[in-house]
Amino acid sequence: MTADLKTGQSVRAAARSKALTRQTSGLAPNYLQANLIVLPSRYADDFRKLCWRNPVPCPLLAESVRPGAFDALKSHVRVEGHDDQPALDIVNDIDLRNDAPKYRIYKEGQLVGADFNPKETETADIVNEWTDDHVGFLIGCSYSFEGALEKAGLPPRHVTKGRNVPMYRTNIPLAPSGVFTGSTWVVSMRPYRTEDVEKVRDITRPFVTTHGEPVAWGWEAVEKLGIKDISAPEWGDGPFADGEGRKEWDNEGLVPVFWGCGVTPQEAVMRVKIPGTVMAHAPGHMIVLDVKDQEVFPGAA
Amino acid sequence: MTADLKTGQSVRAAARSKALTRQTSGLAPNYLQANLIVLPSRYADDFRKLCWRNPVPCPLLAESVRPGAFDALKSHVRVEGHDDQPALDIVNDIDLRNDAPKYRIYKEGQLVGADFNPKETETADIVNEWTDDHVGFLIGCSYSFEGALEKAGLPPRHVTKGRNVPMYRTNIPLAPSGVFTGSTWVVSMRPYRTEDVEKVRDITRPFVTTHGEPVAWGWEAVEKLGIKDISAPEWGDGPFADGEGRKEWDNEGLVPVFWGCGVTPQEAVMRVKIPGTVMAHAPGHMIVLDVKDQEVFPGAA
Repeated sequence: MTADLKTGQSVRAAARSKALTRQTSGLAPNYLQANLIVLPSRYADDFRKLCWRNPVPCPLLAESVRPGAFDALKSHVRVEGHDDQPALDIVNDIDLRNDAPKYRIYKEGQLVGADFNPKETETADIVNEWTDDHVGFLIGCSYSFEGALEKAGLPPRHVTKGRNVPMYRTNIPLAPSGVFTGSTWVVSMRPYRTEDVEKVRDITRPFVTTHGEPVAWGWEAVEKLGIKDISAPEWGDGPFADGEGRKEWDNEGLVPVFWGCGVTPQEAVMRVKIPGTVMAHAPGHMIVLDVKDQEVFPGAA
Repeated sequence: MTADLKTGQSVRAAARSKALTRQTSGLAPNYLQANLIVLPSRYADDFRKLCWRNPVPCPLLAESVRPGAFDALKSHVRVEGHDDQPALDIVNDIDLRNDAPKYRIYKEGQLVGADFNPKETETADIVNEWTDDHVGFLIGCSYSFEGALEKAGLPPRHVTKGRNVPMYRTNIPLAPSGVFTGSTWVVSMRPYRTEDVEKVRDITRPFVTTHGEPVAWGWEAVEKLGIKDISAPEWGDGPFADGEGRKEWDNEGLVPVFWGCGVTPQEAVMRVKIPGTVMAHAPGHMIVLDVKDQEVFPGAA
């Protein structure tokens, strides 16, 4: 089925009908994908500034036009390099409560089980949790540049292997904003050969609002970022597929390359135990938009 | 003389005539002040993205309209919360080569002596070094919110003591952009009583493009930021004036509070040893603009 999911609209429709529950890496190539976080309205101002202060992990794409609006968004996206032009419409016919393939729900900053089943922490929609006081925010996602990497002959390894990208907690401090204090960045990881890293940096650099170029690379970056065990990411699938390990990567000359990750807001919500009900996409299970990379980033390959 | 310097225009005129060579903290209260960095044009794109990726230490206010333009700037400043409105004119009658009270010059990433005098590393203008290939960037400065702190009865200690603010190198990684890799944030420091920290955070939070709220506070932040010796800042004046020390601060209940600092671009230039001639204001010796805080930040006190 997923072979037919070539556009943002088709992915959203499949998620909305609950036909699609898998992660979205590799779907609708070159369409922008987005992280979601939904907060009680009293935290919206602090969160907006948190994004402004931390645009590499938390690039703000759009937000509910008013508390309670799950189907009408105000876009903050401008064509890169043209910040004097009006914001772009990035998505039509959106339902923030249904259009991600899976969601997570937090209460008092704790991830809770769906339907009160503590073993099932991901849910197909958030219709029952959404209230008139909730504000949704869409944050850029690095899946948005995977099409460009593929086009350049550098497909991310997790795409080739049909897996979710690995995501790690780091020690990079998130610049605080209001209630959001004391948190750190989350990063995503794709391995590349050392000699390809500069090319990978160049390809992803234009994608300014979908995390842009990597923040660190090489094995020495693992310790520098405070990542305890590269084989055990906090979110997504493990990096070593098909029984491979560091030795196989060394043989191929692969080193880890890290990008800012839009799961960072979920980490921030957990760290400060935001009161009330917070909702988010399940990591890797994104809302796919209606704009393509080259419409937003004219410099993209 | 400085008592007359109540507006940005009067400070720039005094600097231009070389009557003013001192640091600008406390001058023209409530007017926005700006850091300057001037780069060869081939580094302009990478630097613009460096600012975009690191807006807390490097909030980009404006840049030369074209290489060589020292007297015509393109503003990136919008009224906070109104990013759909056109950019504000932030300064008229500007000469980037003369309007800071003092400058620093870097060649091949090394701070060089003015007039080839290795003991004199600061110079009154950069007229002789400026070329048709140079692009100037103005970066927000935390002096811009000192008027608001003063108005709230919380004047920064260095202003009261008539000194320059202390600035420190930290271990917070600057998100890399193109040639600008491997650098870290610079922070400024103002001590406050622990019970006033939340008020100080609230007052400075609206100043989004002039570093906004603090990034860290308390004595434990010193080690966390990797600051080796609080009494010996890398730039500006030492924090302990009039023979005071940590003991006097403890008696008053003062703890250090740290903000992002626009000296960060100079650190980035030195870290990667940018080839060619780079110029900057001398830390603390800012270019003062024509807009006031409440025009840009309607939420400012």
